[in-house]
Amino acid sequence: MRITTASLKQAFGRSSTTATRARRSFATTARLNASYGFIGLGQMGYPMATNLRNKISSSDTLYIHDVNPAVTEQFAKEVGNVIVAENVREVAENSETIITVLPEPHHVQNVYHQMLRPPTLLTAAPDKNERLFIDCSTIDPKSSAGVANATFSSGQGHFVDAPMSGGVVGASAGTLTFMLGSADELVERTTAVLKMMGKRTIHLGPQTSGLKGKLANNYLLALNNIATAEAMNMGVRWGLDPKTLADMINTATGKCWPSEINNPVPGVCENAPASRDYKGGFGTRLMLKDLKLALQAGAEAEITPHLGSHAQDIYAAVVADEACKDRDFSVVYRYIGGKE
Amino acid sequence: MRITTASLKQAFGRSSTTATRARRSFATTARLNASYGFIGLGQMGYPMATNLRNKISSSDTLYIHDVNPAVTEQFAKEVGNVIVAENVREVAENSETIITVLPEPHHVQNVYHQMLRPPTLLTAAPDKNERLFIDCSTIDPKSSAGVANATFSSGQGHFVDAPMSGGVVGASAGTLTFMLGSADELVERTTAVLKMMGKRTIHLGPQTSGLKGKLANNYLLALNNIATAEAMNMGVRWGLDPKTLADMINTATGKCWPSEINNPVPGVCENAPASRDYKGGFGTRLMLKDLKLALQAGAEAEITPHLGSHAQDIYAAVVADEACKDRDFSVVYRYIGGKE
Amino acid sequence: MRITTASLKQAFGRSSTTATRARRSFATTARLNASYGFIGLGQMGYPMATNLRNKISSSDTLYIHDVNPAVTEQFAKEVGNVIVAENVREVAENSETIITVLPEPHHVQNVYHQMLRPPTLLTAAPDKNERLFIDCSTIDPKSSAGVANATFSSGQGHFVDAPMSGGVVGASAGTLTFMLGSADELVERTTAVLKMMGKRTIHLGPQTSGLKGKLANNYLLALNNIATAEAMNMGVRWGLDPKTLADMINTATGKCWPSEINNPVPGVCENAPASRDYKGGFGTRLMLKDLKLALQAGAEAEITPHLGSHAQDIYAAVVADEACKDRDFSVVYRYIGGKE
Amino acid sequence: MRITTASLKQAFGRSSTTATRARRSFATTARLNASYGFIGLGQMGYPMATNLRNKISSSDTLYIHDVNPAVTEQFAKEVGNVIVAENVREVAENSETIITVLPEPHHVQNVYHQMLRPPTLLTAAPDKNERLFIDCSTIDPKSSAGVANATFSSGQGHFVDAPMSGGVVGASAGTLTFMLGSADELVERTTAVLKMMGKRTIHLGPQTSGLKGKLANNYLLALNNIATAEAMNMGVRWGLDPKTLADMINTATGKCWPSEINNPVPGVCENAPASRDYKGGFGTRLMLKDLKLALQAGAEAEITPHLGSHAQDIYAAVVADEACKDRDFSVVYRYIGGKE
Repeated sequence: MRITTASLKQAFGRSSTTATRARRSFATTARLNASYGFIGLGQMGYPMATNLRNKISSSDTLYIHDVNPAVTEQFAKEVGNVIVAENVREVAENSETIITVLPEPHHVQNVYHQMLRPPTLLTAAPDKNERLFIDCSTIDPKSSAGVANATFSSGQGHFVDAPMSGGVVGASAGTLTFMLGSADELVERTTAVLKMMGKRTIHLGPQTSGLKGKLANNYLLALNNIATAEAMNMGVRWGLDPKTLADMINTATGKCWPSEINNPVPGVCENAPASRDYKGGFGTRLMLKDLKLALQAGAEAEITPHLGSHAQDIYAAVVADEACKDRDFSVVYRYIGGKE
Repeated sequence: MRITTASLKQAFGRSSTTATRARRSFATTARLNASYGFIGLGQMGYPMATNLRNKISSSDTLYIHDVNPAVTEQFAKEVGNVIVAENVREVAENSETIITVLPEPHHVQNVYHQMLRPPTLLTAAPDKNERLFIDCSTIDPKSSAGVANATFSSGQGHFVDAPMSGGVVGASAGTLTFMLGSADELVERTTAVLKMMGKRTIHLGPQTSGLKGKLANNYLLALNNIATAEAMNMGVRWGLDPKTLADMINTATGKCWPSEINNPVPGVCENAPASRDYKGGFGTRLMLKDLKLALQAGAEAEITPHLGSHAQDIYAAVVADEACKDRDFSVVYRYIGGKE
Repeated sequence: MRITTASLKQAFGRSSTTATRARRSFATTARLNASYGFIGLGQMGYPMATNLRNKISSSDTLYIHDVNPAVTEQFAKEVGNVIVAENVREVAENSETIITVLPEPHHVQNVYHQMLRPPTLLTAAPDKNERLFIDCSTIDPKSSAGVANATFSSGQGHFVDAPMSGGVVGASAGTLTFMLGSADELVERTTAVLKMMGKRTIHLGPQTSGLKGKLANNYLLALNNIATAEAMNMGVRWGLDPKTLADMINTATGKCWPSEINNPVPGVCENAPASRDYKGGFGTRLMLKDLKLALQAGAEAEITPHLGSHAQDIYAAVVADEACKDRDFSVVYRYIGGKE
Repeated sequence: MRITTASLKQAFGRSSTTATRARRSFATTARLNASYGFIGLGQMGYPMATNLRNKISSSDTLYIHDVNPAVTEQFAKEVGNVIVAENVREVAENSETIITVLPEPHHVQNVYHQMLRPPTLLTAAPDKNERLFIDCSTIDPKSSAGVANATFSSGQGHFVDAPMSGGVVGASAGTLTFMLGSADELVERTTAVLKMMGKRTIHLGPQTSGLKGKLANNYLLALNNIATAEAMNMGVRWGLDPKTLADMINTATGKCWPSEINNPVPGVCENAPASRDYKGGFGTRLMLKDLKLALQAGAEAEITPHLGSHAQDIYAAVVADEACKDRDFSVVYRYIGGKE
């Protein structure tokens, strides 16, 4: 049986969104079963929530919310067995474990502000765990720490950061890697949840460490990608065959993810975005966003970047270039004038 | 029986270096056997020539030469069964296959000028192959093409470029990779020679392609190395454990040779130079040299570099820094202020 | 009396554009008077040609041409006393001195190809000077040298390069500065022509030297502009009053054209583009074009740029940024996040 | 009469450094006259203190101190009419106005810590002004604010920052420019003191503003200098005469202090360091120091630099280059391979 706000409204003659209603519903079902909440059903969140719904027990409840009601209605239709909450407060009230996947720091801040504001949330399940908030958004560590502190101070739950890598493809296939920043005692419980949406969770240290790890990785990726585009462009302009050059590099010291898996020269990696006009993949806008977050967190630690500030300007140019925008970040090869 | 210039002098009462002497010696021994020459017994050349001598038949001849006579005498003592030529002309006259491993373009140009100047070299072995010159030096493609053209014009042999990667360790272990720029018809013959000094030869295209491939690879390496140092520095300064961070990166999109094999943070890779005060490895001076060659060859093709020109200045600073000079190029981590 | 193609058509019942017609007209008028041609009536060319027409004797002839016929008709109406040629060949045939102001190398190449192709142009004025071609376009020196050589080889005239600075404002006011690349014997004659459109001509050396000087100057300007934007941004973000800071810098070692005349912070220079939402001035697109030309000419001379390659990426990002595009190049202050 | 510690020792049979002694001396002389202290007689401080001593009334007292006793003894001999204090505490106790000129933040912090530690300093002159500390060191604004706060909290005086520009030449000639960060009510008094050592004082705002202004200016200078070296190098490599090129640039938009006053190409500016093998002038080490301070203060304000991080690496390379080190910062022209 598919439960949606609509069907509950039918059953009880009024909205499920009043606290009373939601709690009563909770009281009768959640004691023996687990309850989950999922906020943010975007390109990543939607397939993640789908995997979650498919992996948890059918008697477990899943509350979902998105700013776009069309998306939650679609989810209810396509996936089913969810409760569409009318606001994030309703999600929080009814869930032991809440997962958030949101685009920008201010979205995260707003959603947690609404969830945690007085009156105090009832304990989700007195005989079970305290509430656990898992934020899978990629935001700056400082903002994330602020939300974690607010959560802790409110006494209403625990907060961990678990940004992911693997893209939309990984989110759909359930093969994401999560980078976890969490107190040690929460790692096991968090990992059990995340493994329903991905294949690997790496615990990098206390809260914010997941984000820090992701930003360090993506800083490196941003640079390696440009470096690969430049090196391949050199070789091709010098007359080398791109595939032969890439094969050589990938047995040598130049080998890296962009040279091997996501080579920026069309035709070198058959399935890479470069071979389909740079469509799909990891968008230039997201690469620029992550690079800026890394540089900002670097500045907060008083680190002067070296190659990173130049890379930021390159991606800014790529993002705005008509021939490159809205494409995979390997399109930097096109931006620098690479032969296609 | 070990043959050295010294023993030949004893036997014939005069130097083996006169053309007459050398040719006579050649006439009586080489007809049935192969003859090799090796010029440049530096840090790389010495162990390469050692492997060559150990792999060829004991009845094959090996002529060696180096500007430093102490080195050739040491080689004659340690390895044996070689003829120490007094000059490079003597090497060329007596060898079907000549391998050169020299530091700078002008060394290569000088050595080939001396070898190829009139009178025309006798055919090394009339019933065998024409002379084959294999230059394993890393120089700029334009200079290499010049020497190749001079060789071809002189009618005295063929010239291929085969720069290598793998370092002194690979040269000693015989596990070098050669990047070959060669006419198709010479690939098999060249590969047969190179496999005695390395484990892999990659044919990248016509003459100069080996150098072009190496420079493209090392351009990429130069940048990935700085990128890794910066990303690791960020993570460490943000409080992450360097080993945990590196482990995560190496399962993610930041993975590259410097993050995985040659991590710049002391202690992350037990056997990497970073874990022994950056001693050994691939020297900063060589990295800077290769990067400059790549940028120069890029300029000749009217390529404007992006990150490469910044990287050149970073390595120039590292090379001259008292705390960094004469160390592995991963010491850039120290230069940027990384915690050790 | 104003002569336009239209009025000539009326007078003779057919187009002035046939060679016969144009030459006859020339034969009867130019012997005693000077004859000029002006090709390219764009934002710069139009006011330059206007000044030229106003400064030459009313009995001197001026042939004009532009790819856009509406522009030449407008010029004929607004300025008058010109002959609108239907093609550039007609201009060349009828003029002793031809000035070209065109956007890109290929425009210059095409226009000169059409002017110089067989049959050989009649000498404009047998008792006077040989034809003089003055190209005021900003293009790369190599292309310019190619056109100069083609001109010389054709035996139909001399070619000098005279790119200018001063912008549309200077072109209108007749206060341009010309950077002249010319054989010594042509300097006086060229200067006499250029002074009708500008206030200063600086002879930098033989042909191409004008372009080289301009590119060196604009390379410097491109960097100084970003440097000023960065320094001002720092000061303002640190809490300093921008006007006070600029005043100090302009008495100190940081003083430069962008800090003093074209300060990028709104309000500092009342009449600078920054104080009117960066409108007018020297467009970001032109700055990027000149910087690319400089880098290209640098690469041809095997110069590896240092700050220039980064600057190119910055301007590429600025050019494409919705909030910055089509504005004065000082808008780089906005791009880097400067407080306005 | 020249008063030195030595002469006082003679007169009173014991060191002037005990507080009692110094205060008594003070009590009998300073009531009607002004008293000054000067700490740090380095390359800049020595000539500044000399000018100060020469401009104040002969009956005013000047206490001096330096970590190197040889320097203060030399000053006493060469300039005379000073009291050589044995420590900085003695200087502070006996002076209404104390000027400090020190190399690094930790020197400034240590000197002020020693001056301000308990017991509280007697008011220098009860009927006059409170103590005024003028720090002319170039250090980071954060450290300076820390010292200013400590001074204020101790209740023992006021603190202003007044870094200078003009170099050793300006310090000797008394033509320095001071960039003043000071509360409004102290500007007049401070300016009166500074005008004895320089020709201009620019008040940029409250405490730390002087340093911020200097760092913004020197950030700009650091970049303009490299830009000029690159542009001049381009022109020269393209075959232009450097003097002609510089003359043109200095009438055009490329004009800046390094192009006009301190041109990096030997022979262009007769009196510039470039024309004497880059000797004298503003040392590369100081340029790098100031640039680092600017980048650090930028990072604290979360500013990501663009060209500045590359410039830092260039100066680091220049500082360490055997052919460039310990020379004027225009030697960057040599570093990039400029023709001399």
